[in-house]
Amino acid sequence: MTATPRIVLDVDTGIDDTLALCYLLDAARTGECELAGVVGTYGNVLASTAVRNNRAVLDLFAGAVPGAAGIPVLRGCVCPAWVDGFAVDEGCARFHGTNGLGNVRPPVPSTLPAQAVPSPGAFALAEPSPVSARVATLSRPAVLSLGGERHDLTPGESANRSFATRPSEWRDGDEPPAGVRFIIDEVRAHGRAVTVLATGPLTDVAAAIKAAPDIVPDLKLVIMGGALTQEGNCYDLICETNIFQDPESANLVFRTVPDVMMIGLDVTHQCLMTRADAAAWRATGTPAGAFLADMVGFYINANEASDPVFLAGSPLHDPLAAAVALDPSLVTCFDVNMMVETATGNGHGFRGRTIGDPIRLRKWPKTAHVALDVDAGRFIAAFRDRLANLCAHA
Amino acid sequence: MTATPRIVLDVDTGIDDTLALCYLLDAARTGECELAGVVGTYGNVLASTAVRNNRAVLDLFAGAVPGAAGIPVLRGCVCPAWVDGFAVDEGCARFHGTNGLGNVRPPVPSTLPAQAVPSPGAFALAEPSPVSARVATLSRPAVLSLGGERHDLTPGESANRSFATRPSEWRDGDEPPAGVRFIIDEVRAHGRAVTVLATGPLTDVAAAIKAAPDIVPDLKLVIMGGALTQEGNCYDLICETNIFQDPESANLVFRTVPDVMMIGLDVTHQCLMTRADAAAWRATGTPAGAFLADMVGFYINANEASDPVFLAGSPLHDPLAAAVALDPSLVTCFDVNMMVETATGNGHGFRGRTIGDPIRLRKWPKTAHVALDVDAGRFIAAFRDRLANLCAHA
Repeated sequence: MTATPRIVLDVDTGIDDTLALCYLLDAARTGECELAGVVGTYGNVLASTAVRNNRAVLDLFAGAVPGAAGIPVLRGCVCPAWVDGFAVDEGCARFHGTNGLGNVRPPVPSTLPAQAVPSPGAFALAEPSPVSARVATLSRPAVLSLGGERHDLTPGESANRSFATRPSEWRDGDEPPAGVRFIIDEVRAHGRAVTVLATGPLTDVAAAIKAAPDIVPDLKLVIMGGALTQEGNCYDLICETNIFQDPESANLVFRTVPDVMMIGLDVTHQCLMTRADAAAWRATGTPAGAFLADMVGFYINANEASDPVFLAGSPLHDPLAAAVALDPSLVTCFDVNMMVETATGNGHGFRGRTIGDPIRLRKWPKTAHVALDVDAGRFIAAFRDRLANLCAHA
Repeated sequence: MTATPRIVLDVDTGIDDTLALCYLLDAARTGECELAGVVGTYGNVLASTAVRNNRAVLDLFAGAVPGAAGIPVLRGCVCPAWVDGFAVDEGCARFHGTNGLGNVRPPVPSTLPAQAVPSPGAFALAEPSPVSARVATLSRPAVLSLGGERHDLTPGESANRSFATRPSEWRDGDEPPAGVRFIIDEVRAHGRAVTVLATGPLTDVAAAIKAAPDIVPDLKLVIMGGALTQEGNCYDLICETNIFQDPESANLVFRTVPDVMMIGLDVTHQCLMTRADAAAWRATGTPAGAFLADMVGFYINANEASDPVFLAGSPLHDPLAAAVALDPSLVTCFDVNMMVETATGNGHGFRGRTIGDPIRLRKWPKTAHVALDVDAGRFIAAFRDRLANLCAHA
């Protein structure tokens, strides 16, 4: 008999991250998963927004999922390892809304203690931009990542978007952020009995490895990220968004971790969600169902507008990774030693590309398990049903 | 009982093309293969050089392989579809020698009729450059492919390399070159009982499809080309050389042909030939064995100089494709609908990249069978033994 899978989720929440969290919460509800903690990182949104969204979703389903109110919510890194700060790319905002939830305000459950109820401005459709205030405090020019692209921010510059810098953020030798610490502690305590499920940039995982190399042999990792046999989803069509945010961290992860299950665009683009799925959640008649349906409506509209291939449905990136973390039999994997290219040009490949590592092509064992095929029908049905059941219990 | 495989080989000969031809000739010798014809195309060398090399290899083993003297040797296209002419890239010459045979002169067998013996200058170490003479006949600027890169040749320009243009070459509506015609006739006559094995650019195959679309449903194709899960071998590390030469033709092939077995760098970089293999051929004590060993010595030196990963051996690109055409059980394939990107930039990907086709990601049946794993030990042993046996009989 297999033990209940224990999961540490690291997410840049994000619409499909929210759906992945819901998937795991329903599995926790039915006793098929133990959700040890949720780390919010930068990517689709700022890390602070991800944390706030994670807390809101856990609160929303606290009545439905025993123990959900007690699941730790922590913050990971606020920017990639290669840079001093991070601003959300407009492309991300187009897919996820400026609040990461499709510009929909999550319902506040009546079970929430009064002091925990968010203020009315908390999930504003447009996030208040802290840029001007922050820029005034910059004593030197900052190199930012703007959704993975380098952006040099000068003290005098005014930017029309939210960003975060890490003047007091973790650097090598300092104490890492609480979310990174949590990953380290979980792996040290549970070894391969805990799965780290990372559906955003791999900065937190790489930071955990750098701060605690002893965890590496025991690190069992499932990631949503990369693309090996299909085009990327960055503008260049070569890179996948999560990996592109922090190629150095992703490369470190692929080159050191002995067991990485990669759920990339190869399979997530085969798993498409439609308005019928959202309708099933709305049909539960609960505020939670209406919230998820509204949020997903935003996501489907954005995907349809972005590419005709998504007229058939919107890709379930992060939920598929969550499902595979619980049931790897959903996918068929190609085992290969992977790397991420960190520079562009002749002799370098293309910064952010996920590709086989030529140095380790003939080396065994193969450390990455890249999902190339998926039982999309079985997954999509499970996904729709899990979220409907969760909403019905909310 | 399976019929003897019938093969049409299309090659840009080339050292590893020569080895592939030898592999098939030994299989023909033992009755395990019927070599219907050999088409020479541009790529590693000019098409005219490929044809000459093919003839020389067939002559060399005419005494060992019954019927070899009668195997048709034909010329295919002299340049990619997207351009007016072709010049050999210096990188190709570095790996294959300027004569395509590692600057080694093939022995002339005593069985050859006197009138067929090549003139002493025929396999000169440095090819005579016909550039100046040809440039004088150009009435307009010519757009050349220089190993896949666009090169604008002006009438007054003097170039220090061999090139070929197609002032009288096949264009849509005209009679295609004899090699292309041969492919069409073979598929029309034998259907799926003949395998077209293309180890150079896919210009000839695409030209056959354009001239005779009726062959498409029956076209059974094995190609050496592309890279899906490993870096490319062009300077950019994204593209594979054969595909990069003519992305439009390769894209047409992947998008139309219902059965393409792709033997790319994913597997050929796992199949490494060493000096011990060459020594086995030399040990036969035959001029043929010495020729192959000398030629392969050039190739191994070039590979070792190009990349430290090839200190372990030199990749057997084309011979593996030949072996798989006879015995597909050597490889494990991933079935996927493939495409080739034909432009570089945001929204386009990267010109010459072989990648899954997003439009057909969820479409069945999958038309490409991309080899991702290979029984390298079994193949390399068979390769060494076949060529040793062939040399011993020469």
